[in-house]
Order: sequence, then structure tokens, then C-alpha cells
Amino acid sequence: MTMLYDERVDGALPTVDRELLIKCLRDALPDLQVLHREEDLKPYECDGLAAYRTVPLLVVLPERVDQVQSVLQVCHRLTVPVVARGAGTGLSGGAMPLAKGVLLVMARLNRILEVSPQGRFARVQPGVRNLAISQAAAPYGLYYAPDPSSQIACTIGGNVAENAGGVHCLKYGLTVHNILKLEVFTVKGERLTLGSDALDSPGFDLLALFTGSEGMLGIVTEVTVRLLPKPPVARVLLASFDRVEDAARSVAHIIAAGIIPGGLEMMDNLAIRAAEDFIHAGYPVEAAAILLCELDGVEADVHEDCERVATLFTQAGASEVRLACDEAQRARFWAGRKNAFPAVGRLSPDYYCMDGTIPRRELPRVLVRISEMAREYGLRVANVFHAGDGNMHPLILFDANRPGELEQAESLGGKILELCVAVGGSITGEHGVGREKINQMCAQFTHDELRVFHAVKAAFDPQGSLNPGKNIPTLHRCAEFGALHVHHGQLPFPALERF
Amino acid sequence: MTMLYDERVDGALPTVDRELLIKCLRDALPDLQVLHREEDLKPYECDGLAAYRTVPLLVVLPERVDQVQSVLQVCHRLTVPVVARGAGTGLSGGAMPLAKGVLLVMARLNRILEVSPQGRFARVQPGVRNLAISQAAAPYGLYYAPDPSSQIACTIGGNVAENAGGVHCLKYGLTVHNILKLEVFTVKGERLTLGSDALDSPGFDLLALFTGSEGMLGIVTEVTVRLLPKPPVARVLLASFDRVEDAARSVAHIIAAGIIPGGLEMMDNLAIRAAEDFIHAGYPVEAAAILLCELDGVEADVHEDCERVATLFTQAGASEVRLACDEAQRARFWAGRKNAFPAVGRLSPDYYCMDGTIPRRELPRVLVRISEMAREYGLRVANVFHAGDGNMHPLILFDANRPGELEQAESLGGKILELCVAVGGSITGEHGVGREKINQMCAQFTHDELRVFHAVKAAFDPQGSLNPGKNIPTLHRCAEFGALHVHHGQLPFPALERF
Repeated sequence: MTMLYDERVDGALPTVDRELLIKCLRDALPDLQVLHREEDLKPYECDGLAAYRTVPLLVVLPERVDQVQSVLQVCHRLTVPVVARGAGTGLSGGAMPLAKGVLLVMARLNRILEVSPQGRFARVQPGVRNLAISQAAAPYGLYYAPDPSSQIACTIGGNVAENAGGVHCLKYGLTVHNILKLEVFTVKGERLTLGSDALDSPGFDLLALFTGSEGMLGIVTEVTVRLLPKPPVARVLLASFDRVEDAARSVAHIIAAGIIPGGLEMMDNLAIRAAEDFIHAGYPVEAAAILLCELDGVEADVHEDCERVATLFTQAGASEVRLACDEAQRARFWAGRKNAFPAVGRLSPDYYCMDGTIPRRELPRVLVRISEMAREYGLRVANVFHAGDGNMHPLILFDANRPGELEQAESLGGKILELCVAVGGSITGEHGVGREKINQMCAQFTHDELRVFHAVKAAFDPQGSLNPGKNIPTLHRCAEFGALHVHHGQLPFPALERF
Repeated sequence: MTMLYDERVDGALPTVDRELLIKCLRDALPDLQVLHREEDLKPYECDGLAAYRTVPLLVVLPERVDQVQSVLQVCHRLTVPVVARGAGTGLSGGAMPLAKGVLLVMARLNRILEVSPQGRFARVQPGVRNLAISQAAAPYGLYYAPDPSSQIACTIGGNVAENAGGVHCLKYGLTVHNILKLEVFTVKGERLTLGSDALDSPGFDLLALFTGSEGMLGIVTEVTVRLLPKPPVARVLLASFDRVEDAARSVAHIIAAGIIPGGLEMMDNLAIRAAEDFIHAGYPVEAAAILLCELDGVEADVHEDCERVATLFTQAGASEVRLACDEAQRARFWAGRKNAFPAVGRLSPDYYCMDGTIPRRELPRVLVRISEMAREYGLRVANVFHAGDGNMHPLILFDANRPGELEQAESLGGKILELCVAVGGSITGEHGVGREKINQMCAQFTHDELRVFHAVKAAFDPQGSLNPGKNIPTLHRCAEFGALHVHHGQLPFPALERF
């Protein structure tokens, strides 16, 4: 599938003298790898949001921190925009390149600098893969908790930029809750330390501000992450429901009972069938929805919580509750969930993965409303998501070869996100805003709130050279998209009036 | 005791026409209570840092959110600085008034707007007391976790401004980890919503940025806090040690073993004796140090952890480990700790309470070094603190009536904070920077880092009208205080050379 790239972002940028830029980079950094030939640039034309593509002006691949600093200084001097990229697995186009900008690929800064079992932290370069941190910590019985689905490939630098989440974030928090310190460079190449080795830091909380800022405030060159002890026991319950609402309702019941599962995931019938066909996880293909609930901790605690959760599922109307009887079955239950996206990909030529978050108590009626909206659009929607967090991932199935279907899918996606906002939620959970959801930001925030975002951006990057066109829409763009801001649940869409 | 107020902050501010200001406020807000007589203003001349005092220009006591907005608009029009105050219990002078500024007292905005047991949140006005939230949530088996010692009196608005902590923050996080959404007004009176009812929010993390920003970015008018279920069981162990270092070392051992206590507090001999004389908690008065370790959760889990912690204490060289045998003894153990500050106050005419945070692994040598430094100064220092967080509260005992002793105490205090920075820590844990530690900010941060703080401040408040002279030192001030910034543990103090 292809979507038209919005040329306005690149169009508004000043023209860059590419030859001069290459010369300046080579003069300052003779040993820096610079890619400039079309065939070398092509592989970098998109990140995980492959619908949007553009070939970058140049790609630079620093291997040392001082090279990052020099690249920034050269680009600042020549007023060339810089877009940072980790592994390029992001799903919202946060690392999408600019035709008039340098793509700063951080993947080769991939050294694990320190693992401290006593201090329970790891200090790593931004190009280190998420899973590699847990692997390095494993000999000490420790691990790094946030686990996005892409954790084999995605880098910790990208995780910080997008404030990545994962299955275990309900209990263990997002990236922002699991990092202690960042070394960053500003757009001018000044080095800043944000946070500290202790649990507190004075002044404004710039560590949190940077986390999730999508490369718009500075470039991260070192990350100190918190490591947690591996829970001694983990068990998984699989509950089947004949009604989606019953499954959704039991999510709030579990949390209200004071139980915080290690993971609490939901799949609807379309997703269950797709995963079962693909992985043979042993899922009940007739169920309207299933919940996978992982409980971890010490044996006695997990045992007690399993019984309590099973009772809550039954009370909520579950037709069946199964406890994975051994580690192999537990792994199989999870394999179905973790492969649900590619599994759904087999059902349809194209799908569009949404990422909105709502208050948990709104899950039942929002899921019902999404299925009504899907029917109105004549499109199928599969739901696979982090139910415990209220972080939904509706997958809109469509065929880009059928005229108009892509636009219909995009339109339905936008309406789903606006529905999330209308019930007090957010247009993103863990994927970020990037290029993808920049219009929905106009629904999420007021004019004054967006103005403050722009002022904060300008405090770090007055010329707007870092990742322009992402994350924060211009006020002009929001005016153009029709002042979508929702206040107290009032949206200007007839379809949503009941909310 | 009295300290000279640094007149430079007020001195640098423009002169205000007080009569015009009163007239404008009365015109805009006929029903707003405005205090302007000397005897009415006097009670507001300081917050919990009573060493610094100044009588404010005016005190306003809004009772409605729209009054807060109008006060800000009037003050902005007349360029009058505004200092917000909750209950005035803060220990770093964050709410210290200005002779040329309005003191905006938020204490009367004290309504609990909503308690949602299903959503596990409470929506409250900023003047609601910390403990009142837990009391309102108690009928549902829920509570608000951060518990500063002042929780009977301090307000949630003040807690947000200072990112307050407490005994239970090791396990349950600081204020920033326990709030979901803020309604705030900018200096111009624009209303912003930060965060959302869901667990995620797109754009820059302004919710975290505001938390701990000490009233410098805007005025909070509504706080949505997360509520947690009360743990069914809580037990306390008291361990006695003959050597302070052994006690300190066992703190890291507990955390390294994967146990996260509900609270893990340390007291040294001076504090133990003071508390025992005052409260008769049953503490061992011969011990060099004690640790109080609270374990909470479900019965089986707490039982197992108590045994593991007791073993770790014994292995670390504890001379005695006692488990509180019933709820009455548990309450008595805690009463000694919670009254340790007033107890130490009985030992000496004056004391100065410090608040620094260090990596836990540094506790043994930092405690030894503090006692050496105290000897060098000829002053006594009592230690009572949140050991599990590495958040230290050395209490420097002195007599302000003896010439030079106040200055000596201040000097020793500054050195202790710089020592915290030198070992990778922070000049504040939970008390904030305020007026008190503004000079130590020059030790904590580089010139570039402070410049970024100023830029962020200017993004919200370009004229610097909100709480000027707090939290962030001017670059000029840092130059004057001699570029104290510590990098890689190198400090320009001979006494600290070994670090």
C-alpha cells in the first residue's frame, strides 16, 4: 500500500546545498560513514510506518558520541534539519526522513557500557537493542521491563524517543518509569545530563520531558536504565467469553480487586481465528473474545492471585477459564498473542494498526462502538491489545487495490482515535504521534495547549531543525483540519453523539 | 533562628503600585478575600523554612477556580509577580513570599470533586490535604500512596509543586508517579489540561514537567490522583546494628535480593536516643544505627519476605532483629521514626534539615564521611532518613545564639549536598530546591543545563512572574558562587578529594 507523502513539511524547509554539506561533514569527520547515493539511501526511506516514504538527503552512521556532536554542529551551522533513527521499527513514522534533511542513524552506537547488579542499572548506548539489555542482565537474575513487540530489533534510543511500552507495562511502567539518566546533545551540540544515578533530581523534570519527545528536543547518546529482578514464578490464565463486553468488563474488575497482572491482553474473534490458524496456540476459535492474564511474583502470591482472577472471570461470564499447565503451554498462549499482528496480516492484503488509550472502564462501550463503526464503513476490524492499560490496537483490514478503501480505512482510523479522545483517552498509547497522528493532535489538544508545546520545542530548538513536521501540528494545520478539539466529551461528529 | 533574606530577588523586581493592584483585584473580583494589613500579612511571611522570612505585598485567598484565573490575569496585566502557596509546610522555602509580589494561597480550594473506586482515581482541588484524600478513599479500601511526614497538613497542590515523597515512595513512587491529570492556568490565565484520564498522553510530557516545578510554570487548580488498594497485611522489622556502615550496607543487599519494602528507614544513634526519650518506642538506645523495614502485601508474601529480610540483616551483622509482634508495637516503632524530627529538636536550640539523595550503594561511605565532616566542623549531625531510596536527611544541630554557628551549619550543609552530587546523587530528594538550595543548583548542573532550565521556564513564563528567585539560579549567581559544578566526581573541595 502507498500513501501520498505530505510534501508541505519538506516544501517549507530551506533548500540545502548537499555538496557543501557533504564537504563540511567530511572535513569535520573524515572517518564518519556518510551515505549519499540513491541506492544506499533507499533502504532508509521509511520506518515501520511504511505507508509514508521519502528518500533522505543524506544518511550518516556515527560510531562514536563525538561524531554525533560534530554532525549536530555542522548541521546547525548550515541550518540543515536532522532526523534521528534507531532501528526504524517505529509504527508512527517518527523516524521518517526528510528530503531536505540528514538522517542520523544511531544504530552503530551499540555498546553496553556498564551493567551494575548491585546498583540495579545498566548504562548503554542508544543503539543497543531492547532485548540485548535484558540478555546482558540475565546472568544477574535481572531484566529491563518494558518489552515492545519489536524488542528483538528496536533500540533503547528509539524506545526513549517514543516512550515505548509493551505487554508488561501495566505492572512495570512505560520507558519513562524505567530510566534513570540520559546523556543528550542539543541541536547546537551542547551536552546535557538529565536525571541522576540517584532516584531523584532537582530542577524541572527534563528526563521525563525528553522521554517520548520523538527526537524533537535533542539527541540521546547514553541511557541509564533501571533493571528489575526476574519474578521467580509467572503463570498465565486464558479466559474465553461469548460476549466482548463481558471480557472488557472483567478487566476493570481485576484491577478494582487490587490485582496488578504482569500482563492482561485481549483478543477478539477475528484476531483469535487469525492467530489460531497461524500459530495453533490452542485458542477457542468460537469465543467472541479471550483474555490472557499473566500473574508473576513469588509462588504463594501467584497461586492466590490465579484463584482470585479465575473467580472474577467466571463471575463476569467467562465460558471457560484455563490455567497454562506448564511452561510450554504458557509460551504457546503468548506466542498466539505475540504473533497476532502478522496473523491478521494473512487475512487481508493490507491493515492499518491503530494505537489509542482509553480509561479501562470505557472498554466495553468503546469496543461495541468500534464494531458498529466498522459495520458502517463496511470494513473489518480486529482487536488485539493491552486491555489492562486500556491501550487498544484496532487493526483495520482493507485492500489498497480497491479504489477508495485506503481513504476509508484512514477515515475510520481517525474516527476511532477521536472516539478515544471523546471518552477521556488519548490518540496514542505506545506508538507515538510521529507523522501518522499529527492531525489527531488537533482533536486531543486545545489551541493554548499546542502553543505551549511549540514554546517548549522552541526552548530547545528555536529554529525547528530537529525532526520537523512530527509530533506537534502547527496551529495552522489544526485550523485547516477544523478545530477538532473535544471538550467534556462533545465532538462535532454525529456518529459519536451518544458519547 | 534567623537568616538574612537575600534582598536581591525582590530588589531586582519592578516596583508595584499596591493601591492600584488592590483596586484592580477588587474591581475584577468583588468577592475575593484580599489581605493587605500588616497584621494579616505577617502569618504568611514564611513557609516551613522559617529561617527565611519576608512579608508579602498582598495575600489573596480564592475560593473558586475562576478567581484564580482572574487573579493571574490582573497580575499579568500589571506585571506583578505571583507566588503560590498551599498549606505552607514546605521545607525549602518554595512558597516564601516576595515583598513586591502577591501570595496566592490555594488552601481554600479544598473540595474533593470525585472519588472513583472503579476508575481507581480521585479528582480534587489543590487545597485538599494529602491525608484527606486517603480518608475519602478509605471506604473503598483505597488510598493515595505518597505520604510526606506533613501529610496531615500539607496540600496536594503543594505536593505536586514539590514532587513530594514520603516513607512509602520506595515501593509506590513519588507524586509524579501517582498523578494522572492536572488542570493548570498559565501566567496569563490560559487553562491547560496536562495528562489524561487514560494511562497515556501524547505530545511532550508536560504533566511530569509541571510536577516538582515549584510554581514556576503555572498554577495547578485540579489534580487527578491515582488510588491504590490498601495492602491487606503490613509488618515491620526493627534491626539494630553496632556499626552504621553495616546498617547502610544491608540496605543495598535487600534491594539487590529483589525485595521492595513498603518503607525502609534508617536512624543513627543520636536520632535513636532523641526519639526514644521523646516517644518511648522501645528502640535500642545503645545501637549505632537501626533500620525499620516495613513489608506489605498479601499474607504469604509478607511472611516470606520478613524471613528473607531478617536473614539479610543478620548476615550484614545486625546485633538484634525484632518483628513487631502486633499492630500496637508496629505503630510504636513507626511513631519513633515519624517524630524523630521534633525529637531531635529537643536536643539543640536549632537544627538544619538537609535533603540529599545518593545512589544506595554509596550510603556506607557517605555516612562515614558526613560524620567526619561534622567532627571537623565541631557540630553534631543526626541522621534520620529514607534509606531505601538513598534519600538522606542529615539534621545539623547548632545554636543560632552562638556567634558564627549558623554560618558554620549552613556551610556544613552545603558541603554535605555537594558530597551528594559528587557521588552521583542529587541536592534534593523530596523537599525541593526553593530558595534554600538555589546555590547548590550551581553544583548540580552545568551552565548549559541551567540555560535549558531557563529556556523552559521562559516558554511558560517569559517575564519571569511566577515565583521568581526560586528553584533555578541565574547564571550570574552561579558564576558568583564559583562554578561549583561537579563532573565525574571531581569537586573543587579538598575535603572531598577522596570521592
